[in-house]
Amino acid sequence: MAVGQCDFPIMHAVKGIKLGTSNAGIKQTQRDDILVIEMADTGCCAAVFTQNAFCAAPVLIARDHLTQEPRWLLINSGNANAGTGKQGLQDAFASCASLAGEVEGIAQQILPFSTGVIGEPLPVSKLTAALPAAVENLHETHWDRAARAIMTTDTFAKGASLVIEIAGCPVTITGISKGAGMIQPNMATMLGFIATDAKIEPALLQQCLSAAAETSFNRITVDGDTSTNDACVLLASGCSDAAEILADTPEYAKFAAAITTVCKRLAELIIRDGEGATKLIKIVVEQAQTSAEAVQVAKTIAHSPLVKTAFFASDPNWGRILAAVGRSGLEDMDLDKIEIYLGTVCIVENGGRSPGYTEQDGQRVMNQEEITVTVRLGRGEAREEVLTCDFSYDYVRINAEYRT
Amino acid sequence: MAVGQCDFPIMHAVKGIKLGTSNAGIKQTQRDDILVIEMADTGCCAAVFTQNAFCAAPVLIARDHLTQEPRWLLINSGNANAGTGKQGLQDAFASCASLAGEVEGIAQQILPFSTGVIGEPLPVSKLTAALPAAVENLHETHWDRAARAIMTTDTFAKGASLVIEIAGCPVTITGISKGAGMIQPNMATMLGFIATDAKIEPALLQQCLSAAAETSFNRITVDGDTSTNDACVLLASGCSDAAEILADTPEYAKFAAAITTVCKRLAELIIRDGEGATKLIKIVVEQAQTSAEAVQVAKTIAHSPLVKTAFFASDPNWGRILAAVGRSGLEDMDLDKIEIYLGTVCIVENGGRSPGYTEQDGQRVMNQEEITVTVRLGRGEAREEVLTCDFSYDYVRINAEYRT
Repeated sequence: MAVGQCDFPIMHAVKGIKLGTSNAGIKQTQRDDILVIEMADTGCCAAVFTQNAFCAAPVLIARDHLTQEPRWLLINSGNANAGTGKQGLQDAFASCASLAGEVEGIAQQILPFSTGVIGEPLPVSKLTAALPAAVENLHETHWDRAARAIMTTDTFAKGASLVIEIAGCPVTITGISKGAGMIQPNMATMLGFIATDAKIEPALLQQCLSAAAETSFNRITVDGDTSTNDACVLLASGCSDAAEILADTPEYAKFAAAITTVCKRLAELIIRDGEGATKLIKIVVEQAQTSAEAVQVAKTIAHSPLVKTAFFASDPNWGRILAAVGRSGLEDMDLDKIEIYLGTVCIVENGGRSPGYTEQDGQRVMNQEEITVTVRLGRGEAREEVLTCDFSYDYVRINAEYRT
Repeated sequence: MAVGQCDFPIMHAVKGIKLGTSNAGIKQTQRDDILVIEMADTGCCAAVFTQNAFCAAPVLIARDHLTQEPRWLLINSGNANAGTGKQGLQDAFASCASLAGEVEGIAQQILPFSTGVIGEPLPVSKLTAALPAAVENLHETHWDRAARAIMTTDTFAKGASLVIEIAGCPVTITGISKGAGMIQPNMATMLGFIATDAKIEPALLQQCLSAAAETSFNRITVDGDTSTNDACVLLASGCSDAAEILADTPEYAKFAAAITTVCKRLAELIIRDGEGATKLIKIVVEQAQTSAEAVQVAKTIAHSPLVKTAFFASDPNWGRILAAVGRSGLEDMDLDKIEIYLGTVCIVENGGRSPGYTEQDGQRVMNQEEITVTVRLGRGEAREEVLTCDFSYDYVRINAEYRT
């Protein structure tokens, strides 16, 4: 049910980054559910994590290990190791320790990530039994396997890759993501693993990732639910021949823009694969007083089940969009200044339906697979975008049957 | 698809309150879609309105007329007269003026209410043509007709009625409500019309209604959407033989409790008729620092599509409830202190699944039609309840097909 073009792209290998997968049978599937990523010892690592107050055990461990110059990521799908209390923490750490034994590192150099059902104990022995095979097939070209190994309800593997030039030398940025439901801003309710061969200091790498996540993963929503496990990691191996990227330089700006491009694509792919999604909807809010205000209005629209079911039905029921703007909580909103557009068709102005609007015009836009809704608040100059999808029978089916 | 017992009750007539209905054919239906309520000139009126910044035209007019000692309510279903700009205001006022001509009042004594599709012009001529018939059949016993005339996607008529004794004399309280979707707290995204024959000052009546709405209509949610048209009116005709009800007396306490009881029942009926609802879910949050905090957590759970689809599937997926609590935005939440119960079954304690919990215990509760979820935050003494329903295929169907 993916919306639009979602083919897995050509993934450029990243010097100093190897990926290995294996099948631990965590959720009784035949496909690989373990991913190990190894980075050369010249590299550094940045990460952003879920803002859910109840972080899953692996998130707590990963946050802790992030300060220990990590060199390996250990990801499993099928079990989230969330809501598992102290045992969950022990299990996550034990998994790291097992991998450390395989790669001759120490447990603290490993960041663990888990995605899947909440509240079931992590099957540590199954997981550790599968580690030797994953380590054995570590290779720079295994991005496609890696993307598949981290899938849960995803219907396709998600990747993005590009090569830029820094001072005459190529720098590669390649990443994968997973996520299809429980997608809500702050932090992006998904997993994302992005790697580059750039040389860059850890603090600057973190600044770059935080900024990129803010305008990509934190601007998407399927259902308003924030998971306990979301995380996005950016590895920089330092193996490129390009000179080190320094703060406040044109090279940093170029690098940061490229990281943002990859993050935005990985985020958009998650929405295109939104559970049951039949449409990709971009909500643009313009003329807000502040960026936060624009995001607030955009998310209120994006989370409205009434708006989302109307999109599913291709029904230009603009009254529901207007009502969502009205309950978004902004003070002193002036209805008479607000304009709402479906695509390029003005549907609301001067406090009511636009005089030139016809149902046919609205229907024409609604029939499209990718739709932009633009709201102009007429009270400032800030502009923000949020990506979402519609709400279909299949959303209910997928989430009603998830565990059965 | 209504949940549980929703039979229309015996409705006690209220002295000094008459109701008349007629068919204006606003949405090409055969059933009555106009309701006129007339109050004796000894009465007074209180009201609460939607908190959506974009109030529909009738809400703006009704708010304005509320200060003019209103004696009539004019309600139509099938068209919300919302998002209709200046023309909408003119249409709402013109409808009041027409009714004023029929009843020999003035337009300012009439409060208009509309419910139905947003953004279509109100068919004023159809509406006014139907007024004489509605006025002609004004009668104290027409509560059942009235309840049916204000229905939109409702699957059953909603009423509540009781008689209390004030200083030895009977005082009657009878009310009707409508609403099935776009139901979200603040204000109750519905219409409610309640009448009593009590003698009471307008300011005290308003205080009584505001307090009652806060713990009834403002504690229910179907989909988190707040309509542009919600309103609840409390009419007091003053025709009872009972003495006037004065502030800070046991009689006021008794009267206020009875009004709250009627409001709670009318609110609960809306949730039982939630669009596509198969289950009634009460979310109780205890041991919160403040009442507002308790409501915030309860509504986060109640609005989560993942939680609501799990209830639809009778799936005791308690991880989704835990995740919703975690993202509800409370600061310094201590996961280890939180307890979550499905019915009387403890599912979460000490940061994880309760050791004594079994899937069978959870399933037994989930199979029930009415389910209570209790969350104990372990950080205070405030307690609040929110009523909601599950999220089914039919919710999507109803809202995807609403205009077709």
